[in-house]
Order: sequence, then C-alpha cells, then structure tokens
Amino acid sequence: MPSACVETSLDGFLGGRLVLEQPVQGYRAGTDPVLLAASVPARAGQSCLDLGCGVGAAALCLMVRTGAACTGVELQPGYAALARANASRNDLPLEVIEGDATDLPPDLRQRSFDHVFFNPPYFAAEASTAPADAGRDLALRDRGDLTDWLAAAVRRTRPRGTVTLIARTDRLPEVMAAVPRVLGSLRLQPLVARAGRPAKRFVLQGIKEGRAPFTLRAPLVLHDGSRHLRDGEDGSDIARHLLRDGGALSLSDPAC
Amino acid sequence: MPSACVETSLDGFLGGRLVLEQPVQGYRAGTDPVLLAASVPARAGQSCLDLGCGVGAAALCLMVRTGAACTGVELQPGYAALARANASRNDLPLEVIEGDATDLPPDLRQRSFDHVFFNPPYFAAEASTAPADAGRDLALRDRGDLTDWLAAAVRRTRPRGTVTLIARTDRLPEVMAAVPRVLGSLRLQPLVARAGRPAKRFVLQGIKEGRAPFTLRAPLVLHDGSRHLRDGEDGSDIARHLLRDGGALSLSDPAC
Repeated sequence: MPSACVETSLDGFLGGRLVLEQPVQGYRAGTDPVLLAASVPARAGQSCLDLGCGVGAAALCLMVRTGAACTGVELQPGYAALARANASRNDLPLEVIEGDATDLPPDLRQRSFDHVFFNPPYFAAEASTAPADAGRDLALRDRGDLTDWLAAAVRRTRPRGTVTLIARTDRLPEVMAAVPRVLGSLRLQPLVARAGRPAKRFVLQGIKEGRAPFTLRAPLVLHDGSRHLRDGEDGSDIARHLLRDGGALSLSDPAC
Repeated sequence: MPSACVETSLDGFLGGRLVLEQPVQGYRAGTDPVLLAASVPARAGQSCLDLGCGVGAAALCLMVRTGAACTGVELQPGYAALARANASRNDLPLEVIEGDATDLPPDLRQRSFDHVFFNPPYFAAEASTAPADAGRDLALRDRGDLTDWLAAAVRRTRPRGTVTLIARTDRLPEVMAAVPRVLGSLRLQPLVARAGRPAKRFVLQGIKEGRAPFTLRAPLVLHDGSRHLRDGEDGSDIARHLLRDGGALSLSDPAC
C-alpha cells in the first residue's frame, strides 16, 4: 500500500505528456487505464467520474485528451494521496475523493456525471490465492461485487450519459449478467494482442436509457505481426495512436 | 406453415451433398444452421439433439459431417413432416419428434445427449410486428423464452457434453444473461461478413459442468474483400470450407 515509506516509480504515459508516480509493488497502471480513458466520449466542459481511480491514471489521461472535468473516487488513502500528487505534478485539476465506489459519500451521491468509467477489480474473491501484497490484494479483489460497481456507476450517470469499463475477457459473462437494464445501447470492443487471437481484454460501454441494439465490434489489434518482438517496438498504428499520441477510441464508429 | 398445399423449394446445402425441401414463404434455412452444425464437436456414434429443428437443416448437416445420431424436436407439424421427408430424401436416420422444446415429451425427458444445439427464435415477442405469415411468425417469436430454451438444452445434455447455439448479435446480452451456471467453459465465436465490421451473428458453446475461463474468439470472416460482389462469389476460404465442403469449426482451437 502506498505511503511515505513505500517505494514508487515515475512512469510516462501518452508519449510522456503525463508522468505518474505509482508504487513499484502492487497494482500498477499499464495500458488498461489509457485504453479506458481513450474510450470515454467526453468533451471539454463535461463532467466525468472515475470509480476506483487508483493513482489517477485513467482520469488524468482523459483530462489530457479532452479537457473534461474529472472526479476520482479511491478507497485506499495511499492511492488517493498519489492521485492528488499526480494531478498536481501534471497541473491537472483532478478532484480526488476518498471513499468506497459501492457506498459513495453522501455529497457525491447528490451529483450526476456525463460519463462514469472504471476498471473493476480483476479477481473474484473465491478465485484469489494468498495475497503477496496487501495493497495489491485489496486493489484486485475486495472492492465489492461487480454488480454493485455497475449499479453505482449507472446511478451517478445522467440520462443519455455513458458508462464505460475495461476488464479481462474471462469476466465478460459476469459483467454482462451485472449490466442493469437501464444501461442500453451497449457496445463491446474486444482488445486483442495479435490479429486472429482470442481477446484477452474488452471495453464495454453503454448509454443510460439508450435503446440501440447491442454491438459487437471488430477486435482492436494492439500489436502487429504474429509474435512479440520487444516491448514498444511492434505496436500497431491504432495502439500508437491511443497509447502514445493520446488519441480517442470511438465505440460508436461503424468500424475501428 | 408447410402443408400439402404450401409451395416448397428444393435447395442444396454442403456443396449439394444435402438437398432440403423447405417452404418458399416463412422461415428458410440459410447459412446459420450450416454454421451451427459445423460448430458442434460431435463424433460418429455420439448422440445429438436439435431443439426446434425446423426442416432438419442443422441436424442433417451434422449427420453428413460426423455420422453422429441426431434427434430433432419441432413444434410445428408441417416443419416436422418436412424434416422427416428430408431425412428420407437424403437417406439419413434423423429421428424427428413433434414437441415443444421448452416442454419436452416425457420419454425425451428421460434421455440425455452428448451434444445439444439450437437456433433460437430471432425476435422477442414484445418487438414483433403484425405477422405476415403465421408459420414464420411462430417460428420466429412464440417458441418460448430464451431462458427456457437454454435450461431445456442443458437439462438434456450429459455431464461434459456441449450446448451450442447461433444467434443474432443484438441478442447477445439476452443470451449471456440466460446461460445457466452449470454451463461453463463458454466460447463465443463472432461471425462477421467482412473483416473489420461489427459481428452480426455469433455462435456460443459451453460444456456442462465445464470450468475453463470464458473465451472470446477472433471473428470468423465470411466474405473476402470490402464489398459484396455477388452471392457465392466472394466467400472466404473458411466460409467455403464450412458451407460448401462441410468442414468443422472447432471452437476449442486457439485460433480459427
């Protein structure tokens, strides 16, 4: 768990436009928060809520790209402190609120947002092994049931606003079963390391009170070629556009 | 609804190895039952059940490819009669039972099968417009709730047997929500007309009591090129393999 005595690193995102301090051990922001932020269709002046913001990676990426106003909720004080520090470090006005995403503080429950997004904990409690790191373990498992996260996200979204999440594909059945009926116009974007491979990650986005049919989009291919050569050297054009250039990933385009 | 006074056509499937009589008006077998049959991992000597078999297209395709024993259940007497006639015409021992897939006859309820498959009705009752054709309408809508179909399919499947369905992608959320917990090791195969387009159809397969993670496979591309030229002239290699040569589509291969 991050604290003054926890070792941290400084890592560049979006081609160095964003520098984030994060713990060396425990949950570390990688490409997932960047792809999540790329998928949120926010515009300057709109309001956004990141549930479980960690060190602020997704929210800050979204602010860099769009100029939208972002609020992050984070349960763990160490991560919340790093999110605040990262906002200052990058001169971005991210509002960070310490709290439980599934049991939000009363004043936050009075607010609604144009866009809500989150990266839910990866492992169901029953599938976990013994924790090697308490902060990582809490970040990955014990932050409440996915149904509660989705319900909280939808409650905080204005009508016609969007809810977006990124997750591992083995959780797709759990996610689909947890989507409240009021979240419609669902778009599923598979993320795949190589063309022709099964998708290991996905982005799911819905519109509150949306009524368009469910859409299963073509996979977004993150690496060119059939084998991994070296980190950062074989990213696809679209991966570079999203991860390095801070581009947007529109899930409402007919093709990616 | 097929009867002696209903106009029918004779249509070739699997490169002409199978000839099916089916009504000119109403639900007509196209590529969906062929792709469904291609996905069922049956072997010679195994037993298979087709829920809502129509004129027998999927079951007969599966018998041609594998030599497995197939039973079809069909609610409408006219379609059941055509399924029996099609079995005779093609010299295949398909067992056809008139009955409701969601309320099976008692003797069928005593049996279990290695593989169960179905092509569920396309339109939810609430989304229907006035029926232009009573047979088509019944085939497409009023054959019971998808949850009941999936539950019936899983009940009739032996442990470690498979359940396979094909459906339009706009129904994926409904399908995912209806999958019983006992059906695990789910594999989702998107079917796409052209590379890079959203998937309009999917095949979903699970193993009863399976425990492998959910898999989202790479899309199966049915047509080459970016535009449709003429029917049958721009099918992809894999489409020709499945639709014309009667090949198998293994959903357990790492890639398609």
